[in-house]
Formats: sequence, structure tokens, C-alpha cells
Amino acid sequence: MSFDDVTALQQRAAGLFTAEISPDWTIADKPNGGYLLAMLGRAAGLVGLHPDVIAASAHYLTTPEPGPVTIEVEVLRSGRSASQLRTSLQQDGRSCVQALLTTSRLDADSTAYWDRGVPAPGSLPMADCIRIPDRTPTGLSVAIMRQVDLRIEPGCLGFADGRPSGRGELYGWLALPDGANFDPCSLLYAIDAFPPATFEIEATGWVPTLELTGYVRALPAPGPVRILQRAQLIEARRVDEACFVWDVTGRLVAQASQLAGIKLG
Amino acid sequence: MSFDDVTALQQRAAGLFTAEISPDWTIADKPNGGYLLAMLGRAAGLVGLHPDVIAASAHYLTTPEPGPVTIEVEVLRSGRSASQLRTSLQQDGRSCVQALLTTSRLDADSTAYWDRGVPAPGSLPMADCIRIPDRTPTGLSVAIMRQVDLRIEPGCLGFADGRPSGRGELYGWLALPDGANFDPCSLLYAIDAFPPATFEIEATGWVPTLELTGYVRALPAPGPVRILQRAQLIEARRVDEACFVWDVTGRLVAQASQLAGIKLG
Repeated sequence: MSFDDVTALQQRAAGLFTAEISPDWTIADKPNGGYLLAMLGRAAGLVGLHPDVIAASAHYLTTPEPGPVTIEVEVLRSGRSASQLRTSLQQDGRSCVQALLTTSRLDADSTAYWDRGVPAPGSLPMADCIRIPDRTPTGLSVAIMRQVDLRIEPGCLGFADGRPSGRGELYGWLALPDGANFDPCSLLYAIDAFPPATFEIEATGWVPTLELTGYVRALPAPGPVRILQRAQLIEARRVDEACFVWDVTGRLVAQASQLAGIKLG
Repeated sequence: MSFDDVTALQQRAAGLFTAEISPDWTIADKPNGGYLLAMLGRAAGLVGLHPDVIAASAHYLTTPEPGPVTIEVEVLRSGRSASQLRTSLQQDGRSCVQALLTTSRLDADSTAYWDRGVPAPGSLPMADCIRIPDRTPTGLSVAIMRQVDLRIEPGCLGFADGRPSGRGELYGWLALPDGANFDPCSLLYAIDAFPPATFEIEATGWVPTLELTGYVRALPAPGPVRILQRAQLIEARRVDEACFVWDVTGRLVAQASQLAGIKLG
């Protein structure tokens, strides 16, 4: 199923949508958090006056099951150049994800005025990177890896052999099903698509996202995107990670940070 | 006035507070965005089951004036180890700031399990850094600089002489009035206290925060905090900045990212 299909919304009333979480976009039967945020981003783009999400901040309350969900959107402010919206994703009357979003209109012709540059050592073409398998070492299904083509550079794949590098970063590439192009909504998935960068520190179980903030900075060129996922601090059973997403031309198109739970520290 | 005084809340009903934005905590008569977020953090700590903000994501709708405001807090979920809350700051019936927050209880005895380390070149003691004046080069009042003691290392002060380094980062120190200790609420101010890191790229007017996300990672030791503020990309009249805050012992206590408007690109 295409990304557009698995994030499709049915409008039920003003600011009220239903959607269906796909069982195929899951890790051990839990939907990916960026995939859920992309649904909220799509709803925000339909309700506000502006089509493109540029900032999204989500707090994850409880993990929904695959299946039907309800999405509510409330416009907080509509300006000339941006709309600000509050959204929530509910299942069986329970709020699962709450997010604040800002939408605007991204200009296909804009260019960077100033760029600090690539903070990552990654540089291999996608074909030289290793595709992540659809099963964890402990045998859990990572169904989403049968949908997307997610490849990690060999230089940060120590964890796959039980020998993490200790550097706490992962870099590589991501392509959508059938090589579909990325847009601001699917970039909200891209910022949470990679395995936890903590895999390159120490093996753990699930690293559930508590908070995820993403900025979409430009419309990406057609093709896959390059991603760097990097941990900064593990303390008190929580870890933060930064994420950078570049399009195939090397242009920085999205950035994110997240705070997640981890069974370390 | 102490930070506690200028963020004091009066409870009016369950989840409803009034507060007073101090005219002294302003830049050109506009209250600092982190100061406003700290008020919301304080309210969240009073309403939820947990005292310490660990994650806060704010979208700024419109800038309130100094003077009375109303703060509303709604508990979204109360768990054993964390509470999740939705808050808003209103003035004259207008919503000015909306934020989602997660609160928990930070343990004074926790230690970092893994830390990438300091990403900044800054290293001078506070006494060797330069205090930021209380007036802009164009003559506007930066009243807040009479309240806090904010000092920048000479190595990133090129902008003060009209010769920005082009590196887009500022580092230095921050102390609260009367050397008061930082806590999770005042760290929400610290993550937005520094001048824009873009000053070390090119002089501009106001750089208004659109979205600000902060993570409080540990209870800081008594004393001032060290801060790094760093820009990554300026494009389409928006800039993102990352912020890191360490306590005097060199422990990473808070992190943040923000998206702001800028008259460049």
C-alpha cells in the first residue's frame, strides 16, 4: 500500500476525520510514531488555510492498535503566511497522540540562505547500504520494513552483529513504497523511521517515543532521502535523539528531535 | 524581582490560573518566549501528579503584552511515572501560547548513563565572558538583561562590533537574579534566554519564535548554567536553532530546538 493510502482520511464533519492505521506499518504490531504524526499533519493541511506542515510537536499518550481511529483538528490561529492547529488522534474514545502543528506554503523555488552543513559522516550511495530486515533478532515482526526500503551504511551496522560501535548514530537512506516521492506529510514519517540510534550503543527492547518535534524546511526533490539519527544523552531511562533528513540533491529538508523511554540509565 | 516572583501563579479554579507578565522580563517590550513557557511549566507541575517538567513543546500564536494573563491546564493522561498536559496562555480572550507538556519526578541522584559529550568549543569561566548590555545597537531596551546576568564568550562576540564570525553559534553563561538556583521551570527560560545564534551570521531585527521544544534531563546543581545556542539552516525566512544547557558541574541538564522567523532567506 502506498503512503498516501495508509494515511488516507475520511472527513466526517468540520475538523473531524476517520482513518485506518495499517497493520503493515508497524514494529512488533505497534504503529510507527512518525506514521501517526503524518496522519495528523495531513489532517492539519486539510483544515488550515495552508497545505504544508512546517512544524509539528507531538506528545504520545498511549499506543493505538492497528485499525480505525478518529482525528480531530482545531484551528488555533489563521494568519496570512501560516496556520496553527491543535490535533489529536483517538481510538475507542481514548486520546493516543496530541500534537500542535504549524502549516504554511513551501515554495518549490526557495534555496538555503545559510546552512551549517552536513553534521554526519555518512556518504555512501543507497545501493551500497544494507537493507534492514523485517524481523528483530528476537523474532518480532517489523512489518513496516516490507513496505519501505530502509538502508543503513555498513559503518554504523555494528549492532546487527551484536557489536555496537558505541557512537550512538545511524545513517543511511529511506525510500517509500514504489519509490513514491516524499512530501511534507511523509517527511513527518521520515523523521521517526530509523531504528533508535541507541542500537549503536547497547541493545534494548522497545524505545517508545514520548515527544517528537519535526520541522519541514523545504519540498524534497523526487527520490529517496538520506537520514542521520543521533543520540545525545541517556539518563534516568530516557534518551533524546536528533534527526536530519536530506533529499537526494543533498538539501536539508527536515529536522527533528525526540525524547524516548529506554531501559538503560 | 526573582524568577519565582515573575512566574508566580494565582489559582482561580481547577486547572485555571492568573499570572502577571513582568515588563522587566522583556526585549523591546515583548516578553521572552522561554519566560512564558516557564509559566506554563509551573502551571503543569501544579496540576499534574508530577512536579518536574521533562518535555515541553510550545507554538507561539501571538505575543502578549506585559500585564495580566490567564493560564489553562488540562490533564491529558496521568500515569505512574509521568503526566501529560495541554496548556494555554491567554490575554484579553486571545490565545497567545499553546503548549503540550510532560511532567515526571526527576531524581537528584541520577547520573548520565551515556553522553555524546559537549558539542561546543566554549570553555571560559563566566568571569571571563562579556555581559550583554540592556540596550540594542539601535537603542531598543532589553530590560531582561537588567534582571539576569547573561554573558557571552569573547570568541563569539563578533556581532557586537558588527563583524559576525559567520559560524552561527553563541556560547556563554546565564545566572538568575540574585544568583537563584535553576529548577526545571527556569530551565525552560534558559533554553530561550540567549540572543539568536543568527547574530553571528548577519544582523537582523526581531527573530520571533514560532515553535520551541525543550527537554529537561536532570536537576541542575546550584549556580549559573552554561549555554550553547546554534543555528543549522536559514531558508525561506525561517531559522532553526538547537540549544544545550549544562550546569556548573558540566552536566547536561536541558536541550531544546526552536523554529523562528527571520528577515533573511
